[in-house]
Amino acid sequence: VQSSDAELLTEILDPLSHSEALRELLTLHVDDRSRVLELVPAEMAAILIEEAPNEVAVELVEMLESNRAAEILEELDSDIQADVIGELDDADAEAILNEMDEEDADDVRRLAQYDDNTAGGLMMVEMLRFLDTDTVGKVLRWVASDDEEFERYRGQHPYVVNEEGRPVGVVSLRGLLTAKRSALLPTIMVEPLTVPVDMPLPDLEDVFDKHPFLGIPVVDETGILVGVVSRTAVSDAVLERSETESLKRQGLVGDELRSMPLWLRSRRRLAWLSANIVLNVVAASVISAYEETLAAVIALAVFLPMVSDMSGCSGNQAVGVTMRELSLGLVRPMDAMRVWMKEVSVGLINGVALGLLIGIVAWIWKGNPALGLVIGSALALNTVLAVSIGGVVPLLLKRLGQDPAAASGPLLTTITDMAGFFFVLSFASLMMPWLV
Amino acid sequence: VQSSDAELLTEILDPLSHSEALRELLTLHVDDRSRVLELVPAEMAAILIEEAPNEVAVELVEMLESNRAAEILEELDSDIQADVIGELDDADAEAILNEMDEEDADDVRRLAQYDDNTAGGLMMVEMLRFLDTDTVGKVLRWVASDDEEFERYRGQHPYVVNEEGRPVGVVSLRGLLTAKRSALLPTIMVEPLTVPVDMPLPDLEDVFDKHPFLGIPVVDETGILVGVVSRTAVSDAVLERSETESLKRQGLVGDELRSMPLWLRSRRRLAWLSANIVLNVVAASVISAYEETLAAVIALAVFLPMVSDMSGCSGNQAVGVTMRELSLGLVRPMDAMRVWMKEVSVGLINGVALGLLIGIVAWIWKGNPALGLVIGSALALNTVLAVSIGGVVPLLLKRLGQDPAAASGPLLTTITDMAGFFFVLSFASLMMPWLV
Repeated sequence: VQSSDAELLTEILDPLSHSEALRELLTLHVDDRSRVLELVPAEMAAILIEEAPNEVAVELVEMLESNRAAEILEELDSDIQADVIGELDDADAEAILNEMDEEDADDVRRLAQYDDNTAGGLMMVEMLRFLDTDTVGKVLRWVASDDEEFERYRGQHPYVVNEEGRPVGVVSLRGLLTAKRSALLPTIMVEPLTVPVDMPLPDLEDVFDKHPFLGIPVVDETGILVGVVSRTAVSDAVLERSETESLKRQGLVGDELRSMPLWLRSRRRLAWLSANIVLNVVAASVISAYEETLAAVIALAVFLPMVSDMSGCSGNQAVGVTMRELSLGLVRPMDAMRVWMKEVSVGLINGVALGLLIGIVAWIWKGNPALGLVIGSALALNTVLAVSIGGVVPLLLKRLGQDPAAASGPLLTTITDMAGFFFVLSFASLMMPWLV
Repeated sequence: VQSSDAELLTEILDPLSHSEALRELLTLHVDDRSRVLELVPAEMAAILIEEAPNEVAVELVEMLESNRAAEILEELDSDIQADVIGELDDADAEAILNEMDEEDADDVRRLAQYDDNTAGGLMMVEMLRFLDTDTVGKVLRWVASDDEEFERYRGQHPYVVNEEGRPVGVVSLRGLLTAKRSALLPTIMVEPLTVPVDMPLPDLEDVFDKHPFLGIPVVDETGILVGVVSRTAVSDAVLERSETESLKRQGLVGDELRSMPLWLRSRRRLAWLSANIVLNVVAASVISAYEETLAAVIALAVFLPMVSDMSGCSGNQAVGVTMRELSLGLVRPMDAMRVWMKEVSVGLINGVALGLLIGIVAWIWKGNPALGLVIGSALALNTVLAVSIGGVVPLLLKRLGQDPAAASGPLLTTITDMAGFFFVLSFASLMMPWLV
């Protein structure tokens, strides 16, 4: 990199897989990263941008001169262009769009308006579009001539639109091969399946599940064909959503990677942790209220963190199952009651088992059967509570329009901590004569 | 269902999306589920089996008579047949295979041998295979004639093999359309890209990343073409792996769904929780060793769970980032040192911030600045420790050939719990004169 040897860099990166090449790029110092992207061929730089998670891609593009950025982005499909440009500052975005081909820039501006996880946000504008006055021969000639462009339409069928731009048909490969070259497309086309531009991701998943197509045409509010959403774009979006949700549960927002600036990473994690500390203080106030009980039976302090931790784990398992069933579409917010009944039975079995286990441990360790009874029954009861809350809370949050991935965990552990401390300490107060 | 009205059932299920239909099926009682699968057309039953997560699919198939099961499975692609049959008891599997078409049964037996997340486990045996002595006309006639079969090969190119069955070329659509019908395939084919049957999932991801193909031919150890792995199969497997890993972190193994039998769900969760309770006892033994300190300053008991919980959260964030970077291929086990340095800096900033916060809370709440100092410095130090361990442990486990998703969390929290208790209680012992 230091020697600015573009050819050598290209030789190094070319044989690597895309993810390896990206990893090499990201281990470099920030300044060197942009030097690499300046030096290698635009096509290779485009591959690196495409491979990078969106936040990293945006960072990389931000560091480039706008004309170089435009050159690299021109190599990518319109949906990826729009993803990257949509995340830039308005000024940066305009600077790059001004350097791009005007037609492409207009496409990107339009695409960047749509929400990420809708047909509009996932579609690309490159499509195999023909008029209902075109012939089979025209399509065949196009397929045969334009090989590089054809790559972009992989998996698409030729879509037929009328003069207003509304899709009126789809042509199958079989139709193309068996028809006469002079036949008009309407003689061999079939009714097209289309999706509206604002169709959300879960509905798109269902549509691709039900139909084997690799791409589906997208129409705007007026019924005009505006793009094609591909099976790959939808399944990539589903994967990303699943990973984002799993990270959110640890309070990691916005796809942190270690190549990001220290302060940004630190601040993002801290926001969630600080909120968590407040919830912890609330839970701990229960212990504070029972300091006298605790002072009388100091062994209780050994078991308080165990009871709250174990219930938290049980509750988080229930959250995990509900989140998975939500994402598979196997449960709806209105199923809360059914989920609760299913969880209570698991909670009863596991609560009794864990309660017995910890009760016996406490009895033997501290030589006091009453202590075992207090700890064991507190854990058993709290396990039932934890799985009930863990199973149902994501559904309630969803019904209230909140994000279950981010909020379920902290809400759950605060309640189970408080309840766990309360059960242990209040049972101990009742059993005091046998404990001391 | 009760009235055994097959037509009515079909009418109810048909307009639903596949995931809705599956949800309806799974809300039924177990006996009714198999009745539905007996009554509806085999094609619809096959769709439900395909839509279900693999464990559920296996359960549904187990309940059916073997001839009905064979009839339904025949509707599915060979890769899904093999997934389901590979999970059945040997006796059940043989009973179903005996009812199937002999050739299909042989395919399934062969496919079921391969590991799930390899090219062999993900491929299907249905493929567009032609001989190097075939002509363009033969391919075109086949495409034009056999429409139903053609559906199964969506996205595949015609692969050309020599008489030994080794792939020698791939034919493009463009080649087919521009060549004479009498031309032999070798005149228009290009060198094929192939993958070995034992190529693991991450390598397959890289290959599909680097090449735009929708399917890639798979060869066995002797170089014979044995199947085709599709882009969709690979991306579905990646999604499944990501979800499984996220669930494993809560100790949920094997894709629990609430439609599974109570005892199975309960036992699986309990296995992980019981191991966790042992680790908790180990951690709590630190508190037990300091009971005298605790008895002298009972307020410490209020903060012990807070310090351990907060450090656990910080550490889990680091685990989350490492797991994500591992799955994106942006970090390798040998990068542990680099990851550690990146985490230590985040840990220092967040540790100081959280330590100050909790220190001030402790000071004001209990009116003792020394208590604030003890709690604050313990949390600060333990945060640095937690993010270091959290960032690095998944990499070390991976290097040792262990599964980082399942083991990182419990290992992390046990260490941070022990260290957190130790820091708070040993600092308190040192500061005792100012605390009481």
